[in-house]
Amino acid sequence: MIYLDNSATTQPRKEVVDFISKYSFENFFNPSSVYQPAVKVKLDLDSARKRMLTLLNADLGDKVVFTGSATEANNLVLNGLARKNKKILISSGEHPSIYETAKNLANNGYNIDFIALNKDGTINLKDLESKLSQDVNLVSIIHVSNETGAINDIRQISKLIKSKNPTCLLHCDGVQAFGKVGVNVFQDNIDLYTVSSHKIHGPKGVACLYFNKNVNLKPHILGGGQENGLRSGTENPAGILGFVMAGEIMYENFDARIKHLKEIKQHFINELEKTDLKYQINGDLTNTVNNILSISFFGIKGEVLLHCLEKYEIYVSTGSACSSKHVGNRVLTAMGLKNEEMQGNIRFSFSEFTTISDIDTTIRALVTEIHKLKDYK
Amino acid sequence: MIYLDNSATTQPRKEVVDFISKYSFENFFNPSSVYQPAVKVKLDLDSARKRMLTLLNADLGDKVVFTGSATEANNLVLNGLARKNKKILISSGEHPSIYETAKNLANNGYNIDFIALNKDGTINLKDLESKLSQDVNLVSIIHVSNETGAINDIRQISKLIKSKNPTCLLHCDGVQAFGKVGVNVFQDNIDLYTVSSHKIHGPKGVACLYFNKNVNLKPHILGGGQENGLRSGTENPAGILGFVMAGEIMYENFDARIKHLKEIKQHFINELEKTDLKYQINGDLTNTVNNILSISFFGIKGEVLLHCLEKYEIYVSTGSACSSKHVGNRVLTAMGLKNEEMQGNIRFSFSEFTTISDIDTTIRALVTEIHKLKDYK
Repeated sequence: MIYLDNSATTQPRKEVVDFISKYSFENFFNPSSVYQPAVKVKLDLDSARKRMLTLLNADLGDKVVFTGSATEANNLVLNGLARKNKKILISSGEHPSIYETAKNLANNGYNIDFIALNKDGTINLKDLESKLSQDVNLVSIIHVSNETGAINDIRQISKLIKSKNPTCLLHCDGVQAFGKVGVNVFQDNIDLYTVSSHKIHGPKGVACLYFNKNVNLKPHILGGGQENGLRSGTENPAGILGFVMAGEIMYENFDARIKHLKEIKQHFINELEKTDLKYQINGDLTNTVNNILSISFFGIKGEVLLHCLEKYEIYVSTGSACSSKHVGNRVLTAMGLKNEEMQGNIRFSFSEFTTISDIDTTIRALVTEIHKLKDYK
Repeated sequence: MIYLDNSATTQPRKEVVDFISKYSFENFFNPSSVYQPAVKVKLDLDSARKRMLTLLNADLGDKVVFTGSATEANNLVLNGLARKNKKILISSGEHPSIYETAKNLANNGYNIDFIALNKDGTINLKDLESKLSQDVNLVSIIHVSNETGAINDIRQISKLIKSKNPTCLLHCDGVQAFGKVGVNVFQDNIDLYTVSSHKIHGPKGVACLYFNKNVNLKPHILGGGQENGLRSGTENPAGILGFVMAGEIMYENFDARIKHLKEIKQHFINELEKTDLKYQINGDLTNTVNNILSISFFGIKGEVLLHCLEKYEIYVSTGSACSSKHVGNRVLTAMGLKNEEMQGNIRFSFSEFTTISDIDTTIRALVTEIHKLKDYK
C-alpha cells in the first residue's frame, strides 16, 4: 500500500495506540470523581493542557479545551463568539467546519463576510484590510489550506488585524499546520487555534481549541461543566493523552522530519517533470507545506484517475475528504481555477513514512494510467 | 481495589480495548474517502448502526447518529428540536446535559417546563399530563436515574404522551438504562434515545443518538456533513465499533448478568440491615436498576465517608460524578429529600465484576469508618 492521503487522516503511531490501550484500561476512572485514582487522571489532563500550550509556544496561563473533533472546536469558536451586533470575517478558503457554521450563523441573522483568496490559495490581504471595520470581533483564517497546502502568513495577518482593530480576535484553524510547520501563537498574536489529533498520527475523536485571556467564549455543548464549563461530557483521557503524545513526537526532530518531506515532495515534482504528462501544480511551491501537493492533470477526471491508482493500492484524494461528496471544489473555485483545471485535480499528501520508492511507483502508475484513459490527448 | 462507582464510568473490557487498538491501527482510513479500504470502514460504520438498532429493538430503517459523548447527543436533541413557537418538557430528574441545555434554551427565549418527581425518583405522571398542552413538541425523560437508579415506566409515559398529543416526540436519556434493563424503542414508542459507551465497559469519547422517522432534527455541529449531515467531523470508527461491541456483550447472557447484579445488591442490603448503622435507601427498591444503590447515612457527611472508604481502596460516589462539584443535589432535592438525608448520601454502583466479597469488605469498612466519625450518634 502506498498511502498518499495523509491530509485526510494519518495512521496512528503504534506507540500512541499502545499507550492509549494501556491507559484506557488501567486509568479508566472518571476525572470528575474525587477519589485518588480519578484525581490522578484529572491531573494528567491538566498536564496535557500545559504540554499542548508548550507545543503551541503559548503562555502557560492560557487555555486549552479538548473536544471530540476539530470540527467541534471550530463550531465552538464561531458559535461561542458570534454576537448579533458584531461581525465575523472568514476566508473563502476555510474548511467546511468553519464555512458551513458561518453560513448557518448568517442564516440566523448574524453578520458574516468572506475574504477573497489569491490565485496561490492564500488570503487576499487587501480584501481583508478593506473589510476590517470596527464591528468585526473575529477573523477566522485557515493556517494551512487542506486543499492546496498554501500557508497563510499569520503573523502579517495578525499585525494587520490588530493595527486596524485592536480588540478583534484572530482564530486560526491549524488542523493542516500543526506538526507540519512551527506554530507560535504568542509571537504571531493568535487568539484562538484549532488542532486535530488524527492528522498527526494521533487517535481519531480528539482535538483541541487553544485560546488566550482576550477570549470570552460561550460553550457550545452544555452539561456537567467539564473542561472548565466550555465542553461538557465525560472526557476521554486516554485519547487526549495519546493526542498530546502524538503532537510532541511531531515536534521532536522536527527539522529531520521536514527535510525528509521536502525531499519526497521535490522528488515527486522532479520525476513528474520528466514525464510527458500535462498538468499544473496548484498553489505556490515556495509557500506550501512540504506534505501536500495539489496537481491538476489536464484532460482527465480526478475521480477516475483516483480509482485507476487504487488498483496499485496507491491512495490519493480529489480535493479534501471532507468535500469529496460535493460537486466542484469551493476552495479551488475561490482561487480562480477554471473548470478544466479543477476536473483533473488530485491531492497527494505525504507523511514521514512515505518513501522515495513510493513516489517512483506512483509516478510510473500515473504515466501508465493517464495514457490509458481514452480521452487523454 | 473495590470499584463501586460504575455509574460514573466503567472499566472498558480488555477484548474491546484490544479490538480498538488493532482496528484503529489497521483500518485508520477516513470513512469519507472513496478508495476501497476507506469504503470498507464506511461499511463497518453502517453495519454498526444496524447493530445498534438491533440492540435497541428498533426498526432497521430508523437512524443512529454517533457522537463524541452522550452529553453531545442530548445537546443535539434539545437544540435540534427546539422551536420558538413550541414547548419542551423535561423532568426535574434529568442529567445536567439535558437540564443545563434546557435552561440555556429558556434563557434564549424558548419555552421550557419541568415535570415534578415523585418521592421514589420517578416522574410524576399527573404533573406530566397536566403540562402536555398541544404546543409541546418534545418531552425528554431520563430512562433510569443516574442518582438513584429509579426506573421510569417509559411505555406508560409514551402512551400518555401520544394519547394526549400524537405529534409530540419522546426522547429518553438511556445512559444508565442501556445494558442494565431491556430497551425496546419500537414497543415503547420512543422517538429518540441516547446511549453512552463508557457506562457499558466500552471506550470513552463515543455515544449515540437513536431516532425514528418522525424526527426532523437540525444538526448541532456543522461541517463536512458526516453522519448524514447530523454530526460533522471525522468519525472515530474504532471507538464506534468498540462501543457497539461492548453493547452487544451487555445483552449476551443478559439474564445471567442481571441475576448476578441482583444478588450483589440484595447481599449489600441484607448485610447492611444486620449492622447498627442508621441509614435510608433512596428510591423504591422494587423499581430501581440492579446496579445502583443510593443510601443516605444519617449524621455523617457523604464526602467525608467517601474519603474514609478511599483508604481501603473502595471507590464510591456522593451523587453522580457530573454533579459532584455542585453544592446540594438537584435531583434528590426534587424527590423531596431533606438536607440531613442528602448530606450523608452515597451512591454505590456495581458491575458484573463486583463480587460478594467486595460487598462484605465494604460493609465492614462502612461500620468501622462511620463509627469512627466523631459526630455519629
